[in-house]
Amino acid sequence: MAKDKKKKDKTKGDAKAKKKAAKAKTAAAPVAAAKVKHVSPLAPARFPDLPVIAGVRFASVAAGVRYPGRTDVMLAVADPGATVAGAFTRSSTRSAPVRDCEAKLKKPAEATSGLAILVNSGNSNAFTGARGQVSVDEICGGVSATLGLPGERIFTASTGVIGEPLPHDRIVASLEALTSALAEDGIEGAARAIMTTDTFPKGAVATVETEAGPIRIAGIAKGSGMIAPDMATMLAYVFTDAAIPQPMLQRMLSKTLGGSFNAITVDSDTSTSDSVMLVASGRGVAISNGRSKEARAFEAGLMDVMRDLAHQIVRDGEGATKFVEVRVTGAASDADADKVARSIANSPLVKTAIAGEDPNWGRIVMAVGKSGAEADRDRLAIRFGDITVAENGWRAEDYDEARCAAYMKQPELVIAVDLGLGKGQATVWTCDLTHGYISINADYRS
Amino acid sequence: MAKDKKKKDKTKGDAKAKKKAAKAKTAAAPVAAAKVKHVSPLAPARFPDLPVIAGVRFASVAAGVRYPGRTDVMLAVADPGATVAGAFTRSSTRSAPVRDCEAKLKKPAEATSGLAILVNSGNSNAFTGARGQVSVDEICGGVSATLGLPGERIFTASTGVIGEPLPHDRIVASLEALTSALAEDGIEGAARAIMTTDTFPKGAVATVETEAGPIRIAGIAKGSGMIAPDMATMLAYVFTDAAIPQPMLQRMLSKTLGGSFNAITVDSDTSTSDSVMLVASGRGVAISNGRSKEARAFEAGLMDVMRDLAHQIVRDGEGATKFVEVRVTGAASDADADKVARSIANSPLVKTAIAGEDPNWGRIVMAVGKSGAEADRDRLAIRFGDITVAENGWRAEDYDEARCAAYMKQPELVIAVDLGLGKGQATVWTCDLTHGYISINADYRS
Repeated sequence: MAKDKKKKDKTKGDAKAKKKAAKAKTAAAPVAAAKVKHVSPLAPARFPDLPVIAGVRFASVAAGVRYPGRTDVMLAVADPGATVAGAFTRSSTRSAPVRDCEAKLKKPAEATSGLAILVNSGNSNAFTGARGQVSVDEICGGVSATLGLPGERIFTASTGVIGEPLPHDRIVASLEALTSALAEDGIEGAARAIMTTDTFPKGAVATVETEAGPIRIAGIAKGSGMIAPDMATMLAYVFTDAAIPQPMLQRMLSKTLGGSFNAITVDSDTSTSDSVMLVASGRGVAISNGRSKEARAFEAGLMDVMRDLAHQIVRDGEGATKFVEVRVTGAASDADADKVARSIANSPLVKTAIAGEDPNWGRIVMAVGKSGAEADRDRLAIRFGDITVAENGWRAEDYDEARCAAYMKQPELVIAVDLGLGKGQATVWTCDLTHGYISINADYRS
Repeated sequence: MAKDKKKKDKTKGDAKAKKKAAKAKTAAAPVAAAKVKHVSPLAPARFPDLPVIAGVRFASVAAGVRYPGRTDVMLAVADPGATVAGAFTRSSTRSAPVRDCEAKLKKPAEATSGLAILVNSGNSNAFTGARGQVSVDEICGGVSATLGLPGERIFTASTGVIGEPLPHDRIVASLEALTSALAEDGIEGAARAIMTTDTFPKGAVATVETEAGPIRIAGIAKGSGMIAPDMATMLAYVFTDAAIPQPMLQRMLSKTLGGSFNAITVDSDTSTSDSVMLVASGRGVAISNGRSKEARAFEAGLMDVMRDLAHQIVRDGEGATKFVEVRVTGAASDADADKVARSIANSPLVKTAIAGEDPNWGRIVMAVGKSGAEADRDRLAIRFGDITVAENGWRAEDYDEARCAAYMKQPELVIAVDLGLGKGQATVWTCDLTHGYISINADYRS
């Protein structure tokens, strides 16, 4: 109970800070600022209870990178034997830490030593020229000296404003405090330290039962705007106590991306910092055969955690008031289904109609039409929830606008499109586009 | 002067109607509705004086298709001898009138008879099943009977709500009134009759001097949201008194699309009704050789008119407060430059930063990165107007944030990106993304 109380107080504190920030710039967006300070109405009731992952410890501190009065650096350290996999944005302007992680994972170092992940919020260290890598090197050097780890096993990420030099000295100066704060139960604090415009910290958990015993998976993520991941998303870190060789771990991570972080979009904008990393501490169940029952069970649990975190990012989409699942079936191919689903999920006109609780299926027709996928007006069927709104090239015969308008008032919606052409299918998750998004982004320098 | 007065009164009337419509749905978007009723701050001072195009007459009436108390159908009739060309959206869910026009222009009828173009606003006759073509046939049949023209020379367009059956009987019932109102100087009335969420009527003019005498070109257009044309845009009709054979006219039209209607975007959404048509009445200068001085001069004048109309559509972009030119140079190819320009122009984060008058060049870097075009962080240069903000992979050395913030307060902005790789270039015009866009589109059923 005491912990819950503390959590609530913190959330309130964040809300206050945002209120202050919003007030400072009212000239640019005077009208909807009132919406910005709330925790997303789509947020889970509370942060989940995450299990201890044996062999992994976490810490977070307030290093003063940019935000006053809150934690902004997190450190995760895994004991020797841990393996690590990662996936990153394909943006051609991706950040210095992303490029550094990519290089280190291209030829992963032996797991004989421990490994560390350090993440700061408030500054993305992207488009910072040659200084970017200098900052990464300074931080990795500091972590290496403090924890006695080889540089190749130290990974960093930075999220926040683009194009400002990262004050890495403040992070290096906080390393002693971080190290002494390392604790097995520090993961929730880590989730809070990596937030930027997020209105709630994001955590997810799965426990997979196998014949050899349970496998624990715990993950955290951040993300709210600039969400249209390409190979990965904003930042997500998932930890398991299983023992999994690195190449297999990388394959498993890659397999779950398509149905999780690569299937969400808030605003069609792709971050320069998107990173997801998966650490297997090796203390628990050993998986050595990728086709074993244990491997398949682990993959299912991993997918649950990854998708849960991805959904939470959409639920915290900037200004979001609706969580929307766009399901496309009957396409000529999966690729075509994906095109249609993203065209709908990214359409400003579809997203504003959802914000207005208007069952404006004409805009769905428009989005199908512009997608570039094969489509035939007369085979197309559109459903909102279980209400068929259009089929056979026109409004459904028994279409009931009032019933559909009532459905649109729900906070969670399903828009289903069947193209009637083949077996291709795809699902994408998104949110609505509201005054809140405009208020946040006409003010916040990201 | 009397004419100007009348124009202003009409604008007021539209504003009142919008106010009423906005009031009816205040629940969905209570905060920024006040913005919606204005004429765009980017509107030209007044509708231009359009010359009479010999051999072409115009009329408009209030047929009551959807909007009360305003004109909503326009008719343009050209005398025998006129040629006509067209370009239309490639949307797979394009409207019945678009499909009908495409079919008629695939094998254009002889110019021995006159031709007619009838356009209604308030209903797009898109996704209306088999009824869609029935409505087109009824209207064309009515025009044919009233004016004595063959069906193949009658073209229609519809713009407005998608998926509602078009009350074509109201349009057919207005044909007598339309025909008797036909007048050489009716083009401004026609421009007003085709408006939907437009806040001002759009007209453009060019007079091309040739050795054989002047060629007059006059055009009108409508468009405000759902603007990301693909081969054409919302609705535009351009008329000239030149005599130009149909195949040459079609080629000339196609050549000007890339630098006009296909180079604008308001919200990345592509309409199901996009149509542009060009009519040459044949009463004036004859152009028979596509490479002649006259042909080149005409093409330049046509481009001026097309681009002027396209810019006016952006200036009337839903909720727009800034007119933005995105210039990309130094790309590996023109196609790459176009990808980068559109990625910037369609980015919600770039567009909201512009709305907030924030010189947030980090978001430009993001948009370049996600575009899929070849880019090298260290060769990239970004300018706002003549202020270099970023180069050599980082903020420009003499970058002055205050100067740049002052520049962002202008209503017309240039964002220039040089990729430093090759000779590819592209220019795209767009507007900002504001609370006004959300208010209009969370309420308006399009």
